[in-house]
Amino acid sequence: MKIAILGSTGSIGTQTLEVVRNLDNIKVVALTAHSNVELLEKQIAEFNPKLAAVYDEKAAVQLSNINDTEILKGLDGIVAAASSGQIDLVVNALVGNIGLLPTLSAIEAGIDIALANKETLVCGGELIMPLAAEKGVNILPIDSEHSAIFQCISSSAGNAAERIYLTASGGPFRGYSKEKLASVSLDDALNHPNWVMGQKVTIDSATLMNKGLEVIEAKWLFDLHPDEIKVLVHPQSIIHSMVEFKDGQILAQLGPPDMRLPIQYALTHPKRISNSFARLNFAEHNSLTFEQPDFKNFPCLNMAYEAIKAGGLYPTVLNAANEAAVEMFLAKKISFTDIALIIDRTISSYNGHNIVDIDNILEVETWAKRFACETR
Amino acid sequence: MKIAILGSTGSIGTQTLEVVRNLDNIKVVALTAHSNVELLEKQIAEFNPKLAAVYDEKAAVQLSNINDTEILKGLDGIVAAASSGQIDLVVNALVGNIGLLPTLSAIEAGIDIALANKETLVCGGELIMPLAAEKGVNILPIDSEHSAIFQCISSSAGNAAERIYLTASGGPFRGYSKEKLASVSLDDALNHPNWVMGQKVTIDSATLMNKGLEVIEAKWLFDLHPDEIKVLVHPQSIIHSMVEFKDGQILAQLGPPDMRLPIQYALTHPKRISNSFARLNFAEHNSLTFEQPDFKNFPCLNMAYEAIKAGGLYPTVLNAANEAAVEMFLAKKISFTDIALIIDRTISSYNGHNIVDIDNILEVETWAKRFACETR
Repeated sequence: MKIAILGSTGSIGTQTLEVVRNLDNIKVVALTAHSNVELLEKQIAEFNPKLAAVYDEKAAVQLSNINDTEILKGLDGIVAAASSGQIDLVVNALVGNIGLLPTLSAIEAGIDIALANKETLVCGGELIMPLAAEKGVNILPIDSEHSAIFQCISSSAGNAAERIYLTASGGPFRGYSKEKLASVSLDDALNHPNWVMGQKVTIDSATLMNKGLEVIEAKWLFDLHPDEIKVLVHPQSIIHSMVEFKDGQILAQLGPPDMRLPIQYALTHPKRISNSFARLNFAEHNSLTFEQPDFKNFPCLNMAYEAIKAGGLYPTVLNAANEAAVEMFLAKKISFTDIALIIDRTISSYNGHNIVDIDNILEVETWAKRFACETR
Repeated sequence: MKIAILGSTGSIGTQTLEVVRNLDNIKVVALTAHSNVELLEKQIAEFNPKLAAVYDEKAAVQLSNINDTEILKGLDGIVAAASSGQIDLVVNALVGNIGLLPTLSAIEAGIDIALANKETLVCGGELIMPLAAEKGVNILPIDSEHSAIFQCISSSAGNAAERIYLTASGGPFRGYSKEKLASVSLDDALNHPNWVMGQKVTIDSATLMNKGLEVIEAKWLFDLHPDEIKVLVHPQSIIHSMVEFKDGQILAQLGPPDMRLPIQYALTHPKRISNSFARLNFAEHNSLTFEQPDFKNFPCLNMAYEAIKAGGLYPTVLNAANEAAVEMFLAKKISFTDIALIIDRTISSYNGHNIVDIDNILEVETWAKRFACETR
């Protein structure tokens, strides 16, 4: 199988390459990075892809020519990496809303997608899913929660799910009061209890926006109504999600918090291939607990439910405002609780009358980001 | 679908009829009871089967003729109910080792089996499984643990399981010391914390022999080595069992402790049909815990592992000695801890050289029961 990895120098990208090293019969034909040219050079030397692309055009010029790898740059380069040549599967591990265009391009070319980029479906679900169905393209989730649901739902033929439970660790601030949340630091927010992830996703986990975006993604991936998607706080992050079927039976997927497992499943599905990654030890993980999410002190989760119920470009506004707000929080320009306030203000100011197409997504996105930055 | 229910007046039998009432397109064509003629008469009046059989010949004569239902008696009657006429599925909810012959007879006739009778596979697995494969017959487990594994394993093609976790409540005496176990009463043993079941199974749950018999059954149903079958004590009985696949991912099946759910799955597989049975409430069941089983104070579990590893008729000896010992315990002739002692003595006295065929199973069974009764 020939694969392209978009975002190969990030957290999911490097773990995808670890998985690839352990699998036979996978050839990496394209790699793309945001700006980490140093790591990309090493990856090119090891995997010898036909093509590599760097998003940041300034960084791109620093990339040496290695082997016969063709070097491209900018978003056009990423799109070309996703869809040119003979590719069987694109691993989309891009962070943020730049993931949308390469995904559309790959689907147009009839290429299956292993999707770690939430924003693709959050903003473009209404475009992506019908197009994927039309082109006969599989969208294979990499996110641990959606991989869990995908694995559970595969056990039953037809549309047999009654509801799904998306589990959430609750993040580093689970149980915090409003007052306590007002004074948390960036370092506190980056200190996730269970998972090692990129910065953007880690902050989204702290606000629960991560889970909100996953609710929207699950709606598109599994063709569910938002009311059929329940968020359940499960601090141990061992049950990665569950499906309740219409006969009252529940299947859950469990495993160590190791992203290599859902990545491998996306690459080998429907087969399961042996590996030497650590197994779950029930003597160590001997207690699994559940709580209801705190919708009041973590308003981002409810905003996500409301955005997907409102439909149209509301999820795009939500996502873009969140991206801008998280960027400001990472730059220490705003406080943790400002994130939700800024998103809320941006959504309230959106008029909500645009049709969902790629131009409007990009335009509304630009508007929402600018508005979010200005409203702080 | 035309079904026969063997043991229709018992715990699983009556719940099977509850499930049948809620499903369309299922016609009950045969019912059998041990001796509860009063309830069987009501069932015949409601379901109007072609045939009914009573195991106890004295009780059989008390059964009135209702509608046009043909009335048979004895083990021959049960066997006829399992295999004569046009039957698509036999629900074998018999208790104890009388379940073997009717199962063999149904398989010979090419009829699928929904199996709640553990002893069928415990004693006859070596005969049943190859015959079922030869005849193209499905063996669908009803036991909640095996149904859980069946549901989880169905998510993956091929032989992808690395090991299974059979969960065990631990029974009413979980955590008891040897001294405390020596003085427990029959009433204590019949007071299971989570499940309402028949008396024999309830006592087997208290000794953990129930789990031991399930280990043997799982070996046959899912073609596993005993070392690939782990028992995990899970006092809440919410996770009914789990499968760990060879890629390190685990699927678990969860649900309320309601046997109607696995019964329905056996009747509707591979479809899932909506029902109005209570759903699992995670606000109520907010903590799931795991412990290792206490092999030392509950020696029946290890005896079961040793019996299946020894193979041949050892599981038959184990099962027959257990049946005899539990009967004596229920009659208050022996103490709770005597059950394991009697089984151990019986196994130690078995010479272990018989070939597994139906005659030897019945002969060794008779020997083991007599030996167990005499050795007390």
